[in-house]
Amino acid sequence: MKIGIPKGFRDFSPAVMAKRNFIFDTIKESFKRYGYEQIETPTMENRETLTGKYGEEGDRLIFSVLNSGDYLNKADADAIQLKDSVKVISSISEKALRYDLTVPFARYVVQHQNEIVFPFKRFQIQPVWRADRPQRGRYREFYQCDADVIGSDSLINEVELIQIFDEVLTKLGLSDFSIKINNRKILSGIAEVIGRPEKIIDITVAIDKLEKIGIEKVKEELATKGLTKNEIDLIQPLFELKGEKNQVLNHLKDYLKASEIGLSGIEELQYIFDLLDVVSLNKAKVELDVTLARGLNYYTGAIFEVVSNEVQMGSICGGGRYADLTGIFGLKDMSGVGISFGADRIFDVMDELNLFPKQVIESSQVLFINFGVKESTFVLPILQKMRALDIRAEIYPDTAKMKKQLKYADQKQIPYVVLVGEQEMESGELTLKNMESGDQINVTVDQLIKKFSK
Amino acid sequence: MKIGIPKGFRDFSPAVMAKRNFIFDTIKESFKRYGYEQIETPTMENRETLTGKYGEEGDRLIFSVLNSGDYLNKADADAIQLKDSVKVISSISEKALRYDLTVPFARYVVQHQNEIVFPFKRFQIQPVWRADRPQRGRYREFYQCDADVIGSDSLINEVELIQIFDEVLTKLGLSDFSIKINNRKILSGIAEVIGRPEKIIDITVAIDKLEKIGIEKVKEELATKGLTKNEIDLIQPLFELKGEKNQVLNHLKDYLKASEIGLSGIEELQYIFDLLDVVSLNKAKVELDVTLARGLNYYTGAIFEVVSNEVQMGSICGGGRYADLTGIFGLKDMSGVGISFGADRIFDVMDELNLFPKQVIESSQVLFINFGVKESTFVLPILQKMRALDIRAEIYPDTAKMKKQLKYADQKQIPYVVLVGEQEMESGELTLKNMESGDQINVTVDQLIKKFSK
Repeated sequence: MKIGIPKGFRDFSPAVMAKRNFIFDTIKESFKRYGYEQIETPTMENRETLTGKYGEEGDRLIFSVLNSGDYLNKADADAIQLKDSVKVISSISEKALRYDLTVPFARYVVQHQNEIVFPFKRFQIQPVWRADRPQRGRYREFYQCDADVIGSDSLINEVELIQIFDEVLTKLGLSDFSIKINNRKILSGIAEVIGRPEKIIDITVAIDKLEKIGIEKVKEELATKGLTKNEIDLIQPLFELKGEKNQVLNHLKDYLKASEIGLSGIEELQYIFDLLDVVSLNKAKVELDVTLARGLNYYTGAIFEVVSNEVQMGSICGGGRYADLTGIFGLKDMSGVGISFGADRIFDVMDELNLFPKQVIESSQVLFINFGVKESTFVLPILQKMRALDIRAEIYPDTAKMKKQLKYADQKQIPYVVLVGEQEMESGELTLKNMESGDQINVTVDQLIKKFSK
Repeated sequence: MKIGIPKGFRDFSPAVMAKRNFIFDTIKESFKRYGYEQIETPTMENRETLTGKYGEEGDRLIFSVLNSGDYLNKADADAIQLKDSVKVISSISEKALRYDLTVPFARYVVQHQNEIVFPFKRFQIQPVWRADRPQRGRYREFYQCDADVIGSDSLINEVELIQIFDEVLTKLGLSDFSIKINNRKILSGIAEVIGRPEKIIDITVAIDKLEKIGIEKVKEELATKGLTKNEIDLIQPLFELKGEKNQVLNHLKDYLKASEIGLSGIEELQYIFDLLDVVSLNKAKVELDVTLARGLNYYTGAIFEVVSNEVQMGSICGGGRYADLTGIFGLKDMSGVGISFGADRIFDVMDELNLFPKQVIESSQVLFINFGVKESTFVLPILQKMRALDIRAEIYPDTAKMKKQLKYADQKQIPYVVLVGEQEMESGELTLKNMESGDQINVTVDQLIKKFSK
């Protein structure tokens, strides 16, 4: 049997887990400080809850769980005959794995609407699965970290979510990153102003690719979607609309003066920027980016994207407002806004910039060398005292060679070892060795405990 | 479309999540204090990693993931023709969901043996999935919380794992629970002493049912397995072997005097009990239970089980030593010992005994009432200051009716609300309302912040 795991999946070693936990904990604590509460939804949802929510391509990437027992009994015999894999699925698989956290969240809200206190501020940190082709930085199992508020129109939510981006990434040590903001209403306004409001989706999809494929290719795509040269020329100036945000807003106000929805998008942005001036952010730069489109088509208001300016990585966070997320499950008129942290990409950025503090490694603070039965029996009550004071401490369980025990401490990055032999037991003075410097000093048990107490 | 989740699966609301996190965090912190380090393995393993490890019944309960793409293309056509569901599986499903944490851990150790520092003390807290028939207290998705040390023969590990049981459950507030201990070598010794060493598994399986079915039924089962009345009579006294542990040990020493393996089991138990006398436990009662057998057949040494003496719930924790866990994946002679906390059962025990502290609810410490744009703009910088000091604080995002906002605070169990209207903005004195007592006082921003700072 070959020993391994499926492609696109990962084992996480203690060292990597410590770093990942540092990211997750930082995000979690921030969410909680803003009044967001955690929920969890099951790994498996009914197939029909997930299918049809992510487009055709998305449907193909959903992992299906085979029915248990005699599943062939209910299998669609005709479809099997025709070898129609897609058609057979629903007859042999009732359940599928969570593809993102958004759809299960919408399902949760509708299902529990009578117990939920609205506006519902929830966060959720769980893995999702996609049967995507694995490649560098793209996994078939990865965590999403989402915060959403649903049942509130207030733009204060947008402002606070931007504050959360800033707070979390600053706490993680990033010092140069930009939060790009736009509003879907502005994109709608543009479609209106050029006289092609029905082309809003084509325009959004094309503009979304700007960073990847460049202006010329975007213009080509717009042309193939049926926009005239004249209409494309009208959009063109927006691609280059960069600069100080009040200037950009004034430009836009003029450009969109004939579009009611466009102007309301500007008004929303203006309000958000005004409040952001009141709460000064830490390290985040806020940018108004008219070409920010975000792929997902359920966004209807503000949209966000966060990028590192130090590492080429694509967006490390995203989000936006949606007017009707729960409509797909029958609960109408629930406006909401949410954000998502891309933990894997943030991990890669931090690793590349060497931002993980040394203390994230949560191995023991001290290791007791094991010299034998008598000595270890002497040590156990000391360990007990230390642990009661929340000190992480361990004894090498076996009576192995000193060299082996020291190597263990070294490899586990345990900074101190304590030696308790015959002599130490007699005198009551233990030997404390600093693993980095190699220095040794004598300490009493009380001194030892004091040294490691917080 | 009906809105719901598959049977045997659960949504966790914020209130339940807070309680669950309290349990998980307590376990995690304790594991870390004893030098155990966290790993995670993927949700999906290659099918062949899991099959054949849990017995025939276990194999049936493993959830299979359908291959993506045109899976029927490689399907076993003959088996499909015969409607042989079991046989078809391996041709349409390469991956399966984690059934427990032990087998993936063994696979992890073998796969990463060259990077791992032995003895390897790892813990793992992740969900597992079983296609079991759902019933009260039995779910198809549930968390396991395991700590194991592998690559060490030392009984100090057993002692420390018992200390972890005691520490965690005491910290969770349980005040009356028993850790039952036995040793598989004693069971082997019994089989030897009655002259039927080859019947060790039948004897273990039968004795394992003692609590459930009673002495008479166990004796019947032993008879059907081919033990003579005389042999059963020889075992019988052990069923009633209760009492002070040194007394029991002395009895056993006499009973097993002809069995080398039996005596070595006694010696191991004696050593563990001696060390447990050196480190006094908190609330745990330690019991030697000769009839404790544990179902799993990979145990070879000490075995543990923890029960609450206040709530009828079966075992809430378990564990034991295994001589050869990684042998199935080709790495021999790796002795280890591990324990597992049954988080769901512990949750039920704590809920029934009302042991969850009020502070586990991590909702905001204070809610600011939203009186309008001017007032909320005044409040945002105050919120920012509070959050920078790690205070959980929020503002009701919308300008809703006062009654609605107070109801929100009440339902989210937020203990204080702050009112900032025209008058408060002018005077700089905010109104702080205690939601429980209804009392209101005036405070400055500094006083407010001071009140909630840690």
